[in-house]
Amino acid sequence: MRVLGIDPGSRFLGYGVVDVRGGRTEHVASGVIRTDGKAPLARKLESIFIGLQAVITKWEPKSVAVEGVFTHKNARSALVLGHARGVALLIAAQADLEVFEYAPARVKKAVGAGGNDSKESVAKMVERLLSLREPLGRADAYDALAVALCHAHQFRMPTPSGRTVIKLTSNQKRNLSADFLSRLKPSVVRAAP
Amino acid sequence: MRVLGIDPGSRFLGYGVVDVRGGRTEHVASGVIRTDGKAPLARKLESIFIGLQAVITKWEPKSVAVEGVFTHKNARSALVLGHARGVALLIAAQADLEVFEYAPARVKKAVGAGGNDSKESVAKMVERLLSLREPLGRADAYDALAVALCHAHQFRMPTPSGRTVIKLTSNQKRNLSADFLSRLKPSVVRAAP
Repeated sequence: MRVLGIDPGSRFLGYGVVDVRGGRTEHVASGVIRTDGKAPLARKLESIFIGLQAVITKWEPKSVAVEGVFTHKNARSALVLGHARGVALLIAAQADLEVFEYAPARVKKAVGAGGNDSKESVAKMVERLLSLREPLGRADAYDALAVALCHAHQFRMPTPSGRTVIKLTSNQKRNLSADFLSRLKPSVVRAAP
Repeated sequence: MRVLGIDPGSRFLGYGVVDVRGGRTEHVASGVIRTDGKAPLARKLESIFIGLQAVITKWEPKSVAVEGVFTHKNARSALVLGHARGVALLIAAQADLEVFEYAPARVKKAVGAGGNDSKESVAKMVERLLSLREPLGRADAYDALAVALCHAHQFRMPTPSGRTVIKLTSNQKRNLSADFLSRLKPSVVRAAP
């Protein structure tokens, strides 16, 4: 299953494509759609529309994951953010993709970061979980991959007790920090066969 | 010149088309694009996209006027509003229409309503200014026409002193309330030839 994660923004929109096969997650592609800072908002949205359409056409994801509607500190920045998010959701609907929304706290938790952890530590967690060899550049791409990973976690088999099993390859386990592993209950970490 | 005014909302999106010829403004069309209240936000946005495209294809406006980004009381409702607004701006950019944004206070003033006036009084002002014979139904259509009228006012000839001349037909003048006329300086009200 291929998931497209989106971190919406009108100036920089992060995207991350991840493949989920059994318990394994693999990085497929990620990047940032940049818009002209001096362009009017309507033109920025048009650039996002074209860019995201290209991403979906090229990588053919089956579902889209976006951070959910959350309480923003600033109503004005929430309104501007909504514009880019609206275009992202529109494209997903037009491409007939399923859309999933996750609260920011849940996204952080999914990659093993705490609610107060910085963007940098989220980036590090994503690098480890996906065994990325090179840094991706802007944080927006990591955030998009984190949302994709959050969604990918939904498709892991539940244990009989209803808990989700996170299957990790030995390579991924090596890459995980002791800090991340210590936050997981022992019963939910199991090496992939 | 034909102006499309938009009052964005994800559940009900108001639109109003107005023709500006010299100092006269004429109602061309108006209505509300309704979306399925139970549908996911992405599907609502798709309905708005299809509906607004149909409006633009049918009425061929030259420019689009939308209420500007303003300070919303509630960040969450601002974010949701941003989604519909983003789709509206996107369509305008795709159709290569000029987009103009007006602050809500300016829109109210343009139709002769005060900042604290209710939606109902804005609707009445719009009815009078456009000599509408029947009520339009939902307030969203009136709000959209009010934004279109606000933009239309930009294209009236400035007086030598730099003040804008509002040209009114005698019919429009008859329809205007004394209250509205009293808010205008005498020098800026002039009957159309």
